Amino acid sequence: MQPYELPLAAAADAIRARRLSPVELVDSVLARIEEVEPHLGAYVTVTAERARRAALEAEREAARGRFRGPLHGIPMGLKDLIDVAGTATTASSRVRAGHRAQADSTVAARLTAAGAILVGKTHTHEFAYGLTTPQTNNAWDRGRVAGGSSGGSAVAVASGAATFSLGTDTGGSIRVPAALNGVVGLKPTYGLVPRHGVTSLSWSLDHVGPITRTVEDAALVLTALAGHDPRDPASPAAPAVDYRPDTGTDLTGLRIGLPRTYYFDHVDAEVEAAVRYAIGRLEALGARLVEIDIPMTRYVQATQWGLMVPEATAYHEGTLRAVPELYQADVRILLEAGELMSAGDYLRAQRSRTLMRREWARVLEEVEVIAAPTVPMTAVRADERTVTWPDGTAEGVSDAFVRLSAPANITGVPALSVPVGHDTAGLPIGMQLLGRPFGERSLLRVGHAYERTRPARALAPVA
Amino acid sequence: MQPYELPLAAAADAIRARRLSPVELVDSVLARIEEVEPHLGAYVTVTAERARRAALEAEREAARGRFRGPLHGIPMGLKDLIDVAGTATTASSRVRAGHRAQADSTVAARLTAAGAILVGKTHTHEFAYGLTTPQTNNAWDRGRVAGGSSGGSAVAVASGAATFSLGTDTGGSIRVPAALNGVVGLKPTYGLVPRHGVTSLSWSLDHVGPITRTVEDAALVLTALAGHDPRDPASPAAPAVDYRPDTGTDLTGLRIGLPRTYYFDHVDAEVEAAVRYAIGRLEALGARLVEIDIPMTRYVQATQWGLMVPEATAYHEGTLRAVPELYQADVRILLEAGELMSAGDYLRAQRSRTLMRREWARVLEEVEVIAAPTVPMTAVRADERTVTWPDGTAEGVSDAFVRLSAPANITGVPALSVPVGHDTAGLPIGMQLLGRPFGERSLLRVGHAYERTRPARALAPVA
Repeated sequence: MQPYELPLAAAADAIRARRLSPVELVDSVLARIEEVEPHLGAYVTVTAERARRAALEAEREAARGRFRGPLHGIPMGLKDLIDVAGTATTASSRVRAGHRAQADSTVAARLTAAGAILVGKTHTHEFAYGLTTPQTNNAWDRGRVAGGSSGGSAVAVASGAATFSLGTDTGGSIRVPAALNGVVGLKPTYGLVPRHGVTSLSWSLDHVGPITRTVEDAALVLTALAGHDPRDPASPAAPAVDYRPDTGTDLTGLRIGLPRTYYFDHVDAEVEAAVRYAIGRLEALGARLVEIDIPMTRYVQATQWGLMVPEATAYHEGTLRAVPELYQADVRILLEAGELMSAGDYLRAQRSRTLMRREWARVLEEVEVIAAPTVPMTAVRADERTVTWPDGTAEGVSDAFVRLSAPANITGVPALSVPVGHDTAGLPIGMQLLGRPFGERSLLRVGHAYERTRPARALAPVA
Repeated sequence: MQPYELPLAAAADAIRARRLSPVELVDSVLARIEEVEPHLGAYVTVTAERARRAALEAEREAARGRFRGPLHGIPMGLKDLIDVAGTATTASSRVRAGHRAQADSTVAARLTAAGAILVGKTHTHEFAYGLTTPQTNNAWDRGRVAGGSSGGSAVAVASGAATFSLGTDTGGSIRVPAALNGVVGLKPTYGLVPRHGVTSLSWSLDHVGPITRTVEDAALVLTALAGHDPRDPASPAAPAVDYRPDTGTDLTGLRIGLPRTYYFDHVDAEVEAAVRYAIGRLEALGARLVEIDIPMTRYVQATQWGLMVPEATAYHEGTLRAVPELYQADVRILLEAGELMSAGDYLRAQRSRTLMRREWARVLEEVEVIAAPTVPMTAVRADERTVTWPDGTAEGVSDAFVRLSAPANITGVPALSVPVGHDTAGLPIGMQLLGRPFGERSLLRVGHAYERTRPARALAPVA
């Protein structure tokens, strides 16, 4: 097994035991990037020189018995919305040509302090304003979409081109590409991971979180990321928590909600079968399944768009007027549409969110975790724009991608996508676990118990 | 001294010691209402029958040694935005003709549980959307405005027509009439007192709080009002607190901020002199005065209006379309103007509030309390629409009334108005004490220490 194939926890253990050097690991990942990047296009920039210097330094420290933290020497990719001092944050946009971040974002600073090493900045749908990542191909089938907007981050992790990565998630942008590329993606509770220094799409819906190969790895990264930062107005003053799940797989007595409504409507039969099979495994581990109804589902789309569109436009106000021609057409149209929205429309969306939060809180009194599909289908071909369901309903691909993810953005509850197999075309399927606000430990416990019942997964078989 | 003249704490003590019966007290207040109401117009409805029945019941309970709580038998007026089961909540508007509340608001239920007895519903500027109360005259000079929008509540307490009352405060509507009528008004921290069952003006700026004759009384009422209610989305899950201040007047070491900017600009000379004299007394009690600069003051007005106008319009959307002719012209114009506001305008106001909260938090790290005037001038004549300052600047009366109050609504910090004397025309002057979020105990401590250095105040000399 090559070092780039190691999940984070295994690589970190090997480095700490001095069985693996940070230089070997970083070199292995950089070589893998060279190998797969021509086929996948996950990276905006590969910071090879910088990574090699950092690896050498990490190696010297390890030789002296000094380890910066639990991520010492681990190569990471950061979505190119995340500021790293001295590098560009392009947001995959021409608008940001010549950009250079003055300081680290909070998350970049925390990961660096924990010992992680940046190998590159990953592609996003321009300014994260879309559910695909046009520059990036799916890790399992390069003729198919990566999903988005954190497509580069998910594909890098799925292909061995990063040991872990960070994405951002405003309507599913961590979970959707994680599911479509067979990796783990965690959208934490709103506010838990500070967004200072991260380019905003819609501040009341934006989240930053890890993309990893295992649930355990997601917990390791979350532990380094979480914690109060007064520079993010949504950040609660909460004490530090160690999110690593214990090794037990007994879920006896845990109440898991099985949605009777919404989450299994208009879902591909193979996706549904794989997710229901995985939920059956949770029951076999002792969980008690409780049928639940998802509240206010007909407001999801209007609320998501009603919040996102004007907030995105407000963020881009200056550049949209100064250099509109530098935006891609799809993004520019959405931004310009936002100028036409009334305060009343936005307020209706805010009020609807307040009611949804309340109703979801009631459901989450009954159950500790909700289990559902992450995305209604597997990755579509790059030229597909709509999907047609068996009842004849046609749905835009982006609408379908966002449909099962958006409720967790609107309500702020944490949501974890875990790989649960492949369809007959070999494309990955994700199960989504949703929890109570700040209930990440429960999600990680369930996800980790599930993955311990399955054989270790191989990387995507690129090229 | 007649029972209606007693401050709340004294009346409650007398009832508990069985020196005063709830029937005597309620009858005395009802008689006082009959005496002064023709001159003042504080009440929309006087609930005399209901109050007498409740007083009789309270008297029977007291005879059996049973006291519902610290407000047992105390007559109160509630601003007519506050639901009381079985009575109308008219909001002083024709729009609410025939209204009948199905259930108690949280605050009405809590006060009733604590033993208070409703004597009537008090007048407000229609739907609280204004800084005067046209139906109500100032308790000290009936040719002058009561201030608003909780003018009825302040005048009732100032004249002995209620032992205490509740008001609501979106841009100063508790503090302004309290100051102009020589009584104590407390706008608590945003979220501390639940608003369930209270008609909304602007939910992100609305607060409910007590109007009383002493600071100690305000603390007694706040203790009954505060505490979590999941039906108000802004209500934090916080434990119950006893807000009654201790009897000490030593303020040694307490850092009180004295604004160098904003709060003493365009303030009537007599108001400034009275407030500075009162602040001098706080210094004499041991407080350390620290000069501070108030941040982002040029955004106050735009932020206040940018938040309030679209939220008010959203609340009234249905009735504004159905029965526009039932609104007063001034309120209708504001509501209709709100339909023209863009989502971008509202978002700018929300973002500016976020920044203001952060900057204020920094100032409130340096000092525990800020002392300032409540209103820049004393009560104007009912026909005055503008005030002209010595430098020749003209300002609308409502703009002047709201100017020094709005920052506490935008930032959510608690603010207490305490009477600090009269101008040469005999009109009351208020000092405003502002504190840290959930720092009510500090405000009440300072206000109580101040009032213990002064002789007891007489009621307004009505009729």
